[in-house]
Amino acid sequence: MQSVRTDYDLYMPRVSQQQLDARRQEILAGARACFARYGYEGATVRRLEEETGLSRGAIFHHFRDKDSLFLAVAEDDTATMVATVARHGLVQVMRDLLDRAHSVEVPGWLGTQLEVARRLRTDPDFARRWAARSAAIATATRERLGRQRQAGVLRADVDVDTLAQFLELAYDGLVLRLATGQPADGLGPVLDLVEASGPS
Amino acid sequence: MQSVRTDYDLYMPRVSQQQLDARRQEILAGARACFARYGYEGATVRRLEEETGLSRGAIFHHFRDKDSLFLAVAEDDTATMVATVARHGLVQVMRDLLDRAHSVEVPGWLGTQLEVARRLRTDPDFARRWAARSAAIATATRERLGRQRQAGVLRADVDVDTLAQFLELAYDGLVLRLATGQPADGLGPVLDLVEASGPS
Repeated sequence: MQSVRTDYDLYMPRVSQQQLDARRQEILAGARACFARYGYEGATVRRLEEETGLSRGAIFHHFRDKDSLFLAVAEDDTATMVATVARHGLVQVMRDLLDRAHSVEVPGWLGTQLEVARRLRTDPDFARRWAARSAAIATATRERLGRQRQAGVLRADVDVDTLAQFLELAYDGLVLRLATGQPADGLGPVLDLVEASGPS
Repeated sequence: MQSVRTDYDLYMPRVSQQQLDARRQEILAGARACFARYGYEGATVRRLEEETGLSRGAIFHHFRDKDSLFLAVAEDDTATMVATVARHGLVQVMRDLLDRAHSVEVPGWLGTQLEVARRLRTDPDFARRWAARSAAIATATRERLGRQRQAGVLRADVDVDTLAQFLELAYDGLVLRLATGQPADGLGPVLDLVEASGPS
């Protein structure tokens, strides 16, 4: 059945959902690079325009404000992380980060997350939106460990929550280290040790 | 033998080294509380005056500028940490942090360290001064592990540097977690696991 064509359609450019999604992805990619390069504070609207190649009107048609844009980039990470955690575990997420530690973008982007760390303690609304992100990864980590325990391939002397928190502590440590530009050389064997100490 | 009294002494108030040191400690304690409460950026000169109960003249007689004051508080931590690491290891430093995680001061002070994290990547002079701090702790950690290896009480299948970096990763993870105000409940058993995985 054909959809009814209204007068509204005659006056509005017809933009498909696909085009909207593509535009949204373009903005996210540009924003991520911009945040990574200039930091959260330094990523001004002008710089966001330059990096995305779009006007502020176009950018803030898709995202309410800079916070929303920042959190949307973080949500993008979360989706990727949750998928990797579910299939290969949190240590694999760390290995992937380590592989990209020599680019500018990964440490820079992580750096912005530290930059807003203070707001996590002082801005309850921002903290709540950020917490949703952490919760998704925490759940995926615990579900995977639960499956491993059921399959009998997880060490039995430590409970799942302690193992999950152990992995999260190592992940947070890696984030801090990369974000502050400390050398990441020699961390491969450290992640092996983390993996060997935790699951199995 | 009596020291020679010069004309200089006649005109200057006589302040003993002990008094100078005591004044310096007072400033450091006030500055630490001020940074913890307001963050690095928020710790204005006026607030530093309020918190220390001293004039800006008195404060900056002892410390060149706010950066120097901040780094001096960090150096104070370093001295304490190095002593604890040498005697009891880095895991004990983590346990001590955890014990004080419910106060305002520890998470707040760690938060300021994240706040300046961006400067570690963008300000080489500041990074160099900060690096001296990390190096002292890194050395103490490796020296203790080296002594444990010599005494035959350290697992022999992982080299000292990997074990040290493993402990440092957990420490950095704890710092990030406390600094962002995430709950620290249940971390006791996680630190037990860190300790058991490393220098057992």
